[in-house]
Amino acid sequence: MADEALFQFLHNEVIQYIYKSDENEEMENGRCITKLENMGFRVGQGLIERFTKDTARFKDELDVMKFICKDFWTSVFKKQIDNLRTNHQGIYVLQDNKFRLLTQLSAGKQHLEHAPKYLAFTCGLVRGGLSNLGVKSIVTAEVSVMPACKFQVMIQKM
Amino acid sequence: MADEALFQFLHNEVIQYIYKSDENEEMENGRCITKLENMGFRVGQGLIERFTKDTARFKDELDVMKFICKDFWTSVFKKQIDNLRTNHQGIYVLQDNKFRLLTQLSAGKQHLEHAPKYLAFTCGLVRGGLSNLGVKSIVTAEVSVMPACKFQVMIQKM
Repeated sequence: MADEALFQFLHNEVIQYIYKSDENEEMENGRCITKLENMGFRVGQGLIERFTKDTARFKDELDVMKFICKDFWTSVFKKQIDNLRTNHQGIYVLQDNKFRLLTQLSAGKQHLEHAPKYLAFTCGLVRGGLSNLGVKSIVTAEVSVMPACKFQVMIQKM
Repeated sequence: MADEALFQFLHNEVIQYIYKSDENEEMENGRCITKLENMGFRVGQGLIERFTKDTARFKDELDVMKFICKDFWTSVFKKQIDNLRTNHQGIYVLQDNKFRLLTQLSAGKQHLEHAPKYLAFTCGLVRGGLSNLGVKSIVTAEVSVMPACKFQVMIQKM
């Protein structure tokens, strides 16, 4: 509870800071999102290193994804991903029915436009985690009804 | 362990981001420190609200400080403050012999100059926490031998 709050408050501050430091108005929304995503990427890289220190080697890509959905997600967000789907061709959809970083936003439709900034860091987190496990990917997120959201992972074959 | 890592990595990213966003070189060290401190302040305000939700009313200022040293510090840094001293005239010195946000820095003297940026957020955290408990203060920090450090709280009488 305490830890959750710490992360959540700091995460909010980071978003606000990045959007506010847009003083010269040069930095539009897209650039802020990229910055948040990059931050998440580096944090994800660091975290996965710690988390997998004592883990057995992964069998395959699906095994890696399951680790992200269970262990990784639980460590960061205190719950597992609710649903993992794949087309078995390198696309995975991770659904979280109650995504922690969205639960604080009110659910009205008028707030939907703000959702992307609350998802960018986490997209990076997943991409960074996967990257350090040798899986190159593109991660995007979408929200239809808050606080549920879907992260789509597209594996980039090397 | 996992939570610690999450906070620590994000904290590092924030420091780096703030120092790097100094693109136009107008923002010198002092301004970065202030920004980190302000961020900590707001996070501290939020946290203390959660932490004291079910707490009995505090007897006095010393009682508040003890709460910061024990409950608050443990929630955030996974350990208590090792030593609390006061001159009974509004100055408190909180000593942490192994401050978590410094343990990752190497202990060489040449790194001492970087210590302030790793302490600024926490100074703000304490100031924000105290502020929401009705105690106005100025908080500074100093390091003599890493990773030990002292936070000095000067209560501002209103």
